[in-house]
Amino acid sequence: MNRSAAPIQDVAHLGCVELLTPRLADSRWYFCDALGMEIVHAASASVYLRAYGDYAACTLKLTEAKAPGVGCIAWRAVSPEALERRAAAIEKTGLGQGWSDGDYGRGRSYRFRDPDGHSMEMYYEETRYLAPEHLRSVLKNLPMKYTGRGVGVRRIDHLALLAGNVTANRRFMQEQLGFRLREQVLFDHGTVEIGSWLSPSPVHHQVAYVKDIKGGHGRLHHFAMWVDNREDVLRAASLLSEHGVFIEAGPSMHNNSQGFYLYTYEPGGNRVEIYTGSYLVFAPDWEPVTWNEEERGTGVYWGGALPQSFLHYATPNIEASATSETREPVPIFDPA
Amino acid sequence: MNRSAAPIQDVAHLGCVELLTPRLADSRWYFCDALGMEIVHAASASVYLRAYGDYAACTLKLTEAKAPGVGCIAWRAVSPEALERRAAAIEKTGLGQGWSDGDYGRGRSYRFRDPDGHSMEMYYEETRYLAPEHLRSVLKNLPMKYTGRGVGVRRIDHLALLAGNVTANRRFMQEQLGFRLREQVLFDHGTVEIGSWLSPSPVHHQVAYVKDIKGGHGRLHHFAMWVDNREDVLRAASLLSEHGVFIEAGPSMHNNSQGFYLYTYEPGGNRVEIYTGSYLVFAPDWEPVTWNEEERGTGVYWGGALPQSFLHYATPNIEASATSETREPVPIFDPA
Amino acid sequence: MNRSAAPIQDVAHLGCVELLTPRLADSRWYFCDALGMEIVHAASASVYLRAYGDYAACTLKLTEAKAPGVGCIAWRAVSPEALERRAAAIEKTGLGQGWSDGDYGRGRSYRFRDPDGHSMEMYYEETRYLAPEHLRSVLKNLPMKYTGRGVGVRRIDHLALLAGNVTANRRFMQEQLGFRLREQVLFDHGTVEIGSWLSPSPVHHQVAYVKDIKGGHGRLHHFAMWVDNREDVLRAASLLSEHGVFIEAGPSMHNNSQGFYLYTYEPGGNRVEIYTGSYLVFAPDWEPVTWNEEERGTGVYWGGALPQSFLHYATPNIEASATSETREPVPIFDPA
Amino acid sequence: MNRSAAPIQDVAHLGCVELLTPRLADSRWYFCDALGMEIVHAASASVYLRAYGDYAACTLKLTEAKAPGVGCIAWRAVSPEALERRAAAIEKTGLGQGWSDGDYGRGRSYRFRDPDGHSMEMYYEETRYLAPEHLRSVLKNLPMKYTGRGVGVRRIDHLALLAGNVTANRRFMQEQLGFRLREQVLFDHGTVEIGSWLSPSPVHHQVAYVKDIKGGHGRLHHFAMWVDNREDVLRAASLLSEHGVFIEAGPSMHNNSQGFYLYTYEPGGNRVEIYTGSYLVFAPDWEPVTWNEEERGTGVYWGGALPQSFLHYATPNIEASATSETREPVPIFDPA
Repeated sequence: MNRSAAPIQDVAHLGCVELLTPRLADSRWYFCDALGMEIVHAASASVYLRAYGDYAACTLKLTEAKAPGVGCIAWRAVSPEALERRAAAIEKTGLGQGWSDGDYGRGRSYRFRDPDGHSMEMYYEETRYLAPEHLRSVLKNLPMKYTGRGVGVRRIDHLALLAGNVTANRRFMQEQLGFRLREQVLFDHGTVEIGSWLSPSPVHHQVAYVKDIKGGHGRLHHFAMWVDNREDVLRAASLLSEHGVFIEAGPSMHNNSQGFYLYTYEPGGNRVEIYTGSYLVFAPDWEPVTWNEEERGTGVYWGGALPQSFLHYATPNIEASATSETREPVPIFDPA
Repeated sequence: MNRSAAPIQDVAHLGCVELLTPRLADSRWYFCDALGMEIVHAASASVYLRAYGDYAACTLKLTEAKAPGVGCIAWRAVSPEALERRAAAIEKTGLGQGWSDGDYGRGRSYRFRDPDGHSMEMYYEETRYLAPEHLRSVLKNLPMKYTGRGVGVRRIDHLALLAGNVTANRRFMQEQLGFRLREQVLFDHGTVEIGSWLSPSPVHHQVAYVKDIKGGHGRLHHFAMWVDNREDVLRAASLLSEHGVFIEAGPSMHNNSQGFYLYTYEPGGNRVEIYTGSYLVFAPDWEPVTWNEEERGTGVYWGGALPQSFLHYATPNIEASATSETREPVPIFDPA
Repeated sequence: MNRSAAPIQDVAHLGCVELLTPRLADSRWYFCDALGMEIVHAASASVYLRAYGDYAACTLKLTEAKAPGVGCIAWRAVSPEALERRAAAIEKTGLGQGWSDGDYGRGRSYRFRDPDGHSMEMYYEETRYLAPEHLRSVLKNLPMKYTGRGVGVRRIDHLALLAGNVTANRRFMQEQLGFRLREQVLFDHGTVEIGSWLSPSPVHHQVAYVKDIKGGHGRLHHFAMWVDNREDVLRAASLLSEHGVFIEAGPSMHNNSQGFYLYTYEPGGNRVEIYTGSYLVFAPDWEPVTWNEEERGTGVYWGGALPQSFLHYATPNIEASATSETREPVPIFDPA
Repeated sequence: MNRSAAPIQDVAHLGCVELLTPRLADSRWYFCDALGMEIVHAASASVYLRAYGDYAACTLKLTEAKAPGVGCIAWRAVSPEALERRAAAIEKTGLGQGWSDGDYGRGRSYRFRDPDGHSMEMYYEETRYLAPEHLRSVLKNLPMKYTGRGVGVRRIDHLALLAGNVTANRRFMQEQLGFRLREQVLFDHGTVEIGSWLSPSPVHHQVAYVKDIKGGHGRLHHFAMWVDNREDVLRAASLLSEHGVFIEAGPSMHNNSQGFYLYTYEPGGNRVEIYTGSYLVFAPDWEPVTWNEEERGTGVYWGGALPQSFLHYATPNIEASATSETREPVPIFDPA
């Protein structure tokens, strides 16, 4: 891709993620009591939360549903003009779904789908969070105090989405939203795109697309929340173990992204990552790092391997379709 | 400032810093053996270094001089066009100094001064670092292996510069280079600008301007290098103590920037910070956080106070001039 | 001291500490909500607590009193025979006060005073803690689950007591209780014993005696609680800052003991240390490390200095008596 | 076991471990360059080393041999009398081998074998380490400076030995050396002793015996070295990965012992653990924690499982003998 031809950077960051859960009360407990997020609003079938370091009023929405999965993924634009530009561009692709007044804490929003069918929207206006007295930090530059409850996640970080066609979705994010490509897993001598990591900012990635080997659509591999220190991830592992939360993998370190991870399943069934580390990409002419079957190895920097469930489980959980790829990627890929 | 009127983001990041030192061999020891940087090049009176996580060939240049201080500060542009745009804009301010072929590892560069007289340049072309065999990392996304030598700083992070007129320099960085303002210390009911922190990217700050209370010009408060974990900063404190390096303050945590710091003096006399933590600014409409005398307090989140030398010492070290402010800022400010 | 002539090791460890507080409810909040201890029992004017890693039913007792300070300090003997041996030996010194049935969670106890007047007792029988269902850990070797509430201190660690005559008290602990001497601060060419650190086990110290420069008796310098990681101490600093708890010093590292510390005042006024690090003493022929005025320096490994209050404040807080030493120890000593 | 009838505590600690290696130069590189130990002496086929926090002159001896494994394991007695007492007691068991003048850094030593045939000795006299000028620490209580080279292990910690009959060896350590039993893995309703962890001090364990499922004798499962912080273990993992050292498992946390571990193979083939955490046992009436098949689970606190090699590989590496147990312990046990 010719950098000079790239769209202006119109997306600022991942703004809010909606998770669907068949066990709303338990999922609420997980994010509020176990991870330490704050509940800011509640509607009939949804609860709205935020992490102490998020500047926005709401960054996670839990919505009751028959099956777990990801609902609407909201991206914030850098300006009103940027929002209009992106909406117009997406409109032309035929994936646009029109404007709404915006969900809790956000203004006018443009709804669309990515090629794989994940629901997304973009917005600019946002209600800045103002902490009530008892949650005000002694630090003026912190939107809310660190309460110390549970894991104490600082902010939402990224999403890993499954897709039938990684290439199509990766291109959509690059071309329509101006995301930059950071790393890729390419199999069969670089001809098969297994996974791609993209970001609208120097943060390593805010979205990853990974091949859905079961032939599903619109599915979620995981949603990740940031903590500031690796010790916070180790502490999270002990705390969640004591809470009886299922730990699938980690704490350990990915080779891809250099992220330090802990993968758990929230009670609704969605995979949630407690995440830190990784690296910032400052280079304007960054050349995406590519990994082949052998280099990708186990996905773990320090040896060992991610468990089979990491490859096979996503939400909603489905049986492999008749039309799905029957050949499994070997070795295990890893949507960090 | 009307965001829409802001210049397009043309600066990518802090690219390379030149430090002047009257003890080149000792300063070289400090950065190479004690901090763990790699020497990549040497010229008559200069040594060129890099940290293992820097993607560029060279990010620190040590140059022999009669007195310590900061030499040329190089910023990388996001594209060739961005470079031309910024050079043209700066040219109009009268602070431009013209083009050169660039220093080691960089291409055509436009040299200029900030209003306080600090030497700067901007460039786009850069030699990407390619590690020799013995320094190649097992991680494809890491430019060079982590050797474990000394502190093991990962990358250069930011600079704090003293200035006679903070406002003029802060505006220059905003208006001519497109930096965004993050935090400010304002005394006397917001009328006296004591310090300002700015960045060209979501990183909290890559440059800070702080009032030079001794009436000097072009002076350096400190140069900061990044490590990934707070434990790395604690380890650095022990290691540098054992090496006999002077530790001025820390490890501790700033309220401003939320940075976790350790301040030392390299043998040449320049203050060097080992730094981690802080926070990323994702909001496109970020409102700068301001601190008054009382709020600023000691500059330390956890209580205690920065030592007097933190206020009075900078490089080159000078006597207070007759024309300098005689009233000291009270309480201590802190160019995080 | 001829090691062979030393009493058999009859004391196992520090068992339980009683702190006096004029603000019982607030002190209870500090230890239970802010530090994360568990309340196990309450009597008229006392609350009994434990930390999650303590194997005993109760390791801290808070008792309402007019002024803060330390109440009874309980040491556990290694066997019933050891208890009898120590009681008989102390009886002969004239400092014994006789037997009781024991406080909450402990059996028959022998009460005595150290030469400076601090109240102590020794016991062997103890009620082992059995966690209720909701506090049971998934680790069979952990007495109680790590709940994650507040700082999450793991166990009580040590006490620093002030004394008019450090030598007399240090000898009492060595000769009557079999403690071993680890480090000492000796001023005036080794003739003036300013502080001594002692332990009944390989743990570096469980009690320190430091010169009471105000001429008081039976006073407390600080009570320390253990956390497993330095990051826990850093986290405690942020958490307690947000709770408005006064932080006097740290997080930082002592040269003496190599302890990593954070000193706070609990609401009742007692100085409480959050502590980790240090080193185990395995050598049976350990030679006490001594520090003179110059070597002792600031008490801080990484430079900087402990604040004046660290020297002057203890509980109960008193005015310097007419008969007290008027000459202050210089430089600051530090009862780690 | 009736505690009162227990032998007096005559053993102070693990003093020195000899490892056999078919690749002496490479093993030397591993311990000196990669782990950061100091070489203090060399003989024809042996190299003597120490860690910066060890107070003794030598704590690890590497000896060239045809196959890897453990050589002589030296325990320090608490006094000359204790040494005589233990020698006399062992003599009666028929496992004694007589006195020698002692290896490098140690005085008169009594050599013996444990029931499984591991070579051991006991001594009291020892040459205290005195650091040369360039290795002297600024901390008077640290035998040698922390150089920052490699992993920077602080001291030797413990050994895990395989044995045909765990019970016999465990009893030998309890009855002849006065070790205390801390934890056990008992299968088949408590009738089959799979592993036992013992210590002569409040340190959780300094030796573990684990069932040799291949029917060997005198074999080593692993040798462990201590670091102070979990971050040191994570750093070790990255550093050793970059050095190409094989990482078998971790960093992660055991349920048994609560140890935080990283298992690697040194170039000679011996499994070496980088270790921290765990807990001190203060209770004089500690009741050993027992784990059955189900409770033992994967041996990992946070889920996941130790790899098969952890069960099957030991040094010297042998084929399972005809007389060995054919039934494998299920699930995996874990000699922490």
